[in-house]
Amino acid sequence: MDRNRFAAIHCSVARAAGAVADPWTLLVLRDLFLGLRRFEELRQDLGIATNILTDRLDRLVAEGLAERRPYSSHPLRHEYHLTPAGEDLHGVVLALLAWGDRHRAGGDGVPLVPEHTVCGHPAVATVVCDHCGGTLTADSVSYRPGPGGRQAPGTSLVATRLAHGD
Amino acid sequence: MDRNRFAAIHCSVARAAGAVADPWTLLVLRDLFLGLRRFEELRQDLGIATNILTDRLDRLVAEGLAERRPYSSHPLRHEYHLTPAGEDLHGVVLALLAWGDRHRAGGDGVPLVPEHTVCGHPAVATVVCDHCGGTLTADSVSYRPGPGGRQAPGTSLVATRLAHGD
Repeated sequence: MDRNRFAAIHCSVARAAGAVADPWTLLVLRDLFLGLRRFEELRQDLGIATNILTDRLDRLVAEGLAERRPYSSHPLRHEYHLTPAGEDLHGVVLALLAWGDRHRAGGDGVPLVPEHTVCGHPAVATVVCDHCGGTLTADSVSYRPGPGGRQAPGTSLVATRLAHGD
Repeated sequence: MDRNRFAAIHCSVARAAGAVADPWTLLVLRDLFLGLRRFEELRQDLGIATNILTDRLDRLVAEGLAERRPYSSHPLRHEYHLTPAGEDLHGVVLALLAWGDRHRAGGDGVPLVPEHTVCGHPAVATVVCDHCGGTLTADSVSYRPGPGGRQAPGTSLVATRLAHGD
């Protein structure tokens, strides 16, 4: 994944996707949200090759989404903790989980049930408008260019079309 | 991306990520949500190599997220339209966009502004509990195993820990 390429696109979807849109990265994030912290725990849980896990943890640290904290000095060992920017991905992970529950659960039922501790109920993550609280369905959202928009690779056509209200 | 491997994990995050967690896939989805339909439009907009775009569109069709509809018979040409399962990814894409706006917009400001046509205001996608409407922050959600949960690669540790209430 050429992260620099996506970071250079004038689009927040591209930049967010360049940072986290990789299945192993998202599963490491899931495990950090579930409370796993150590390399060996993550490796055991995911059944992932050591070099792949190292790569994904290094990426999360490089992106500012996780940080290493020593928990042993002899030998030196680290735990991984989410940064505030990493914790802010919780909604993205829950939105993926809710979609997977709706479209990929199959006959066995859902594998994991998030519960909202504030209200005490099982929570289906729903993506809503911060202004009115209504669900942001595909047919209830239109788009206009923002100040950071550019006509450049990644947005070569949409930048112009949005500016003209197409 | 070994999609079958992620589809086999007993986790909706893994299955959803296996289907869409790829930057180009998400940018094609973004463009379909923005109203682009044709291969040449997508290629021009994204500045993407033909073989990569073909691969991502084939994947979206294979995953049941997009479908081809002919718009010309001589020569035969197709448009790509989101299926209901594809349209249901709108919230995931908007949650990524909102995260990117918060953490990757830089000094230029946000590139793209979603507007909620129901209330008429710019919309910051917020991931909330369907029961109480509260935001599902990382520290306000706990997890318990669901009927489809299994102790298997991808969930080898978390399945047991969640069952024991760790």
